[in-house]
Amino acid sequence: MATVFESLDDTVLRAYLFWVAVLTAKMLLMSPLTSLTRVRKMAFANPEDSGAVSRKLKPKLDDPDVERVRRAHLNDLENILPFFVIGFLYLLTNPAPSLAVNLFRLVAASRIVHTLVYAVVVIPQPARFLAFMGAMVPTVYMTVTTILHFL
Amino acid sequence: MATVFESLDDTVLRAYLFWVAVLTAKMLLMSPLTSLTRVRKMAFANPEDSGAVSRKLKPKLDDPDVERVRRAHLNDLENILPFFVIGFLYLLTNPAPSLAVNLFRLVAASRIVHTLVYAVVVIPQPARFLAFMGAMVPTVYMTVTTILHFL
Amino acid sequence: MATVFESLDDTVLRAYLFWVAVLTAKMLLMSPLTSLTRVRKMAFANPEDSGAVSRKLKPKLDDPDVERVRRAHLNDLENILPFFVIGFLYLLTNPAPSLAVNLFRLVAASRIVHTLVYAVVVIPQPARFLAFMGAMVPTVYMTVTTILHFL
Repeated sequence: MATVFESLDDTVLRAYLFWVAVLTAKMLLMSPLTSLTRVRKMAFANPEDSGAVSRKLKPKLDDPDVERVRRAHLNDLENILPFFVIGFLYLLTNPAPSLAVNLFRLVAASRIVHTLVYAVVVIPQPARFLAFMGAMVPTVYMTVTTILHFL
Repeated sequence: MATVFESLDDTVLRAYLFWVAVLTAKMLLMSPLTSLTRVRKMAFANPEDSGAVSRKLKPKLDDPDVERVRRAHLNDLENILPFFVIGFLYLLTNPAPSLAVNLFRLVAASRIVHTLVYAVVVIPQPARFLAFMGAMVPTVYMTVTTILHFL
Repeated sequence: MATVFESLDDTVLRAYLFWVAVLTAKMLLMSPLTSLTRVRKMAFANPEDSGAVSRKLKPKLDDPDVERVRRAHLNDLENILPFFVIGFLYLLTNPAPSLAVNLFRLVAASRIVHTLVYAVVVIPQPARFLAFMGAMVPTVYMTVTTILHFL
């Protein structure tokens, strides 16, 4: 068995697993949010989708509300998925448990707020910028810590 | 060693690893499928790509067939990658082995069918909707199970 | 404890963890690169972003330089994230350590070059094609090896 796994702290690992599952749930909700927005705005991406509603309806790929939700979803892929990976690698660097748990909480809360102010109720900047940074800064910290640890 | 890993069942883990590798292969095939469609429709995204074919050819970003394959690929990122993560976390909740293995099979089969009816041979709805749900419902079930387990 | 983890080689695992962290850092840099390009070209995606600069500025979704960086970022999600998963699974197939470490190095170097020639300094084809293949070919090899191992 690889020795890097030996230092894994059970409490911190459970916190990681919990927050990863919560953020996965948040990400999965973006699909029905996109679908609901497509129905509300009657803006479907494919002819077989718009055609299922009405033969006269044409696909529409530039609805601003639908594209906003899609950008929020893509932003999740760009930030949450790398966090899932680097969050676990960071655990293998033997971090202080309370620091690690609080970083996971900060990332999770920030990404939930990011979705709310981006795709649910649009709030003027710098709301989205701060929510983005609340997840980006701890993720960068974990990444740099991991690189230096396994150098 | 963290105790959460102790309950990991070898048979279920091997089933997880196999289906994850199969779905990775499926996802990787989306890149050559996009490239082939770009060549077939002569719709390249970058001037250095279209220019390599003919100096007169301009980039084209709105070809419906290319965009369809790209949407199918993005849909894979949105659904298969979170499944990779939550599928493993779900294994740590000590599930019934036969249930877990069948959920993995259902997700994998559904996502393969999703690609076929979306990007290879377009089949009228609700084909794509059902294939999408065949993966989404078990993924949501695993996510909720994991959240409740590590609460 | 699952027996599949027993064969994990510590040296190879550390190489994997290091290169995954490096590629995560590379991916995270795509967000500020997009933001910088948006500011340089004054092409913001959302009215609350352009409005924060000037009330007269309208959102702009088709700037070629911004879209190029976004395509490079999406290409990372499509290729680097599956590599993170399959790279670890490949380690569980008990590969020759030197082969595994060199495959990781090849993927990492190729993806860094891919970003440079795609989104930083545009270099004519086949530069981007070769960089893409330098990561795709080893990733496919690892995927096929993993499928056959856990069949």
